Amino acid sequence: MTATLIDGKAIAARMLGQVQAEAGDLAERGWAPRLVSISVGDVAAAELYVRNQQRQAEAAGVAFEARNYPAEISLEQLIGVLHGLNADPRVNGIIIQRPLPAHIPVKTLQKAVHPMKDVEGMHPASIGNIVYNDLTLGPCTAVAAVEILKTLPLRMEGLDVCVIGHSEIVGKPIAFLMMGLGATVTVCHHMTRQVAVHSRAADAVFVAVGKPGLVTGEMLKPGAALIDIGINRVDGRTVGDADFDSCAQVAGWITPVPGGVGPVTVATLMKNAVLATRMQMDHYTAAFAVER
Amino acid sequence: MTATLIDGKAIAARMLGQVQAEAGDLAERGWAPRLVSISVGDVAAAELYVRNQQRQAEAAGVAFEARNYPAEISLEQLIGVLHGLNADPRVNGIIIQRPLPAHIPVKTLQKAVHPMKDVEGMHPASIGNIVYNDLTLGPCTAVAAVEILKTLPLRMEGLDVCVIGHSEIVGKPIAFLMMGLGATVTVCHHMTRQVAVHSRAADAVFVAVGKPGLVTGEMLKPGAALIDIGINRVDGRTVGDADFDSCAQVAGWITPVPGGVGPVTVATLMKNAVLATRMQMDHYTAAFAVER
Repeated sequence: MTATLIDGKAIAARMLGQVQAEAGDLAERGWAPRLVSISVGDVAAAELYVRNQQRQAEAAGVAFEARNYPAEISLEQLIGVLHGLNADPRVNGIIIQRPLPAHIPVKTLQKAVHPMKDVEGMHPASIGNIVYNDLTLGPCTAVAAVEILKTLPLRMEGLDVCVIGHSEIVGKPIAFLMMGLGATVTVCHHMTRQVAVHSRAADAVFVAVGKPGLVTGEMLKPGAALIDIGINRVDGRTVGDADFDSCAQVAGWITPVPGGVGPVTVATLMKNAVLATRMQMDHYTAAFAVER
Repeated sequence: MTATLIDGKAIAARMLGQVQAEAGDLAERGWAPRLVSISVGDVAAAELYVRNQQRQAEAAGVAFEARNYPAEISLEQLIGVLHGLNADPRVNGIIIQRPLPAHIPVKTLQKAVHPMKDVEGMHPASIGNIVYNDLTLGPCTAVAAVEILKTLPLRMEGLDVCVIGHSEIVGKPIAFLMMGLGATVTVCHHMTRQVAVHSRAADAVFVAVGKPGLVTGEMLKPGAALIDIGINRVDGRTVGDADFDSCAQVAGWITPVPGGVGPVTVATLMKNAVLATRMQMDHYTAAFAVER
């Protein structure tokens, strides 16, 4: 293996340290950050994930309330719940846990969360703000993947970047964020004729598709950075979208799965929580400053 | 010249015909589309442009009110005006004409326009909806450029596209519109190391930078489509960003400037006006249907 392994846990720990300091400062001003997590129906699948979020939040000084609603709840009732949380000044961020029952379209819920409380960065306005390059709350996984790349000794301006996968919440936001940093970005997906043509020319490759072994060593430029966002279960093991062994022979840097993007994503959620809280505090203050 | 010249005026005429039918249908239901144009201060620069919008609007059955406010008006006053227009059911779309005085930040105004009345497609939520690929109101110039490409006998899925220029309102939205159509998109800009490396490999090139002669024939793949969005004044003539003569020798299709993207952009604004009016009508109906 020639590639340097990127330690996601260490990056996350540094970020959570900053979040904790920020949360402490906000608490002193009477704005202790508080998240509410909404899950619906049988959450066995997500429960472990939610408990992990809760542990990380509380360790970073962010209050975390996990709510679970019965699978029979109607979309209208849930939207009512969200409007209540939007209006509640003691709630600074709202997390909508997936999966949701079939009768609850996730996008409709995401749009019902007030953009200033959208700590997952899923609201169209949050995504739009990335395009406008004034990033406030970005989609956690995408922001985490870019934060990881930024820890490497690479100049972002003019960097040739290939993003494989064009989902709204990962691939496309990564592309925007990297453009904002001055990179030249190509986005590939299942309709791309030859992904290797693009990935082989890139200084950094992000992959977020959900196909184990999709990216192999010969698809990479020697010394390139490979940020693997995929999370797949293969024979009881968790693996990414990259064929780790062959990629590690060619890449200059590579993220492990697990232990790469995952922990940094949770840390980013907490960073968004304190960002959202500060925005709400400033908004509240400004609203009075101009005597509306 | 080997390239086929793309007739923007003919494409615009077809679009305006559909707008007129749509506007007539809406008028019958009591929702005749109506736009309000806001300009501030000395508008000599924009006046010709605004009058052209007005003529096109009225020809397509869209009412158009051109308002001009004094250069001394404060940002707060203007935002108050916009809130009034947002709340007025007789106003279906709001256009904010550039240039604006230095003390009026255009983005702040754009964000103050209700997304459902954002016929220019400039609100962060409108941009975010492009990323989410459920396009309602898109930025007119970007939508127009893509509409032009769609008139060519090219399969969009898997098409290799190069976008030169990464502005929020043109380059980036074009990239995400093309991704939504299944193209493989690379976005180049002033920090890109070698634009020609990317443009030469593309089946279609969009250029929106504002530099006359930026794209030359040898930067194109023979037979490629070139959509020139640039508008520059050179010795009293209006030219695009492409060196037309050399590009026309290599490209398969090319847009003239003027007479290419320009007219289609105005037609797109009118299309957005009827789209916005229909959204508002449906929203209004739905609001009563569920007895809120």
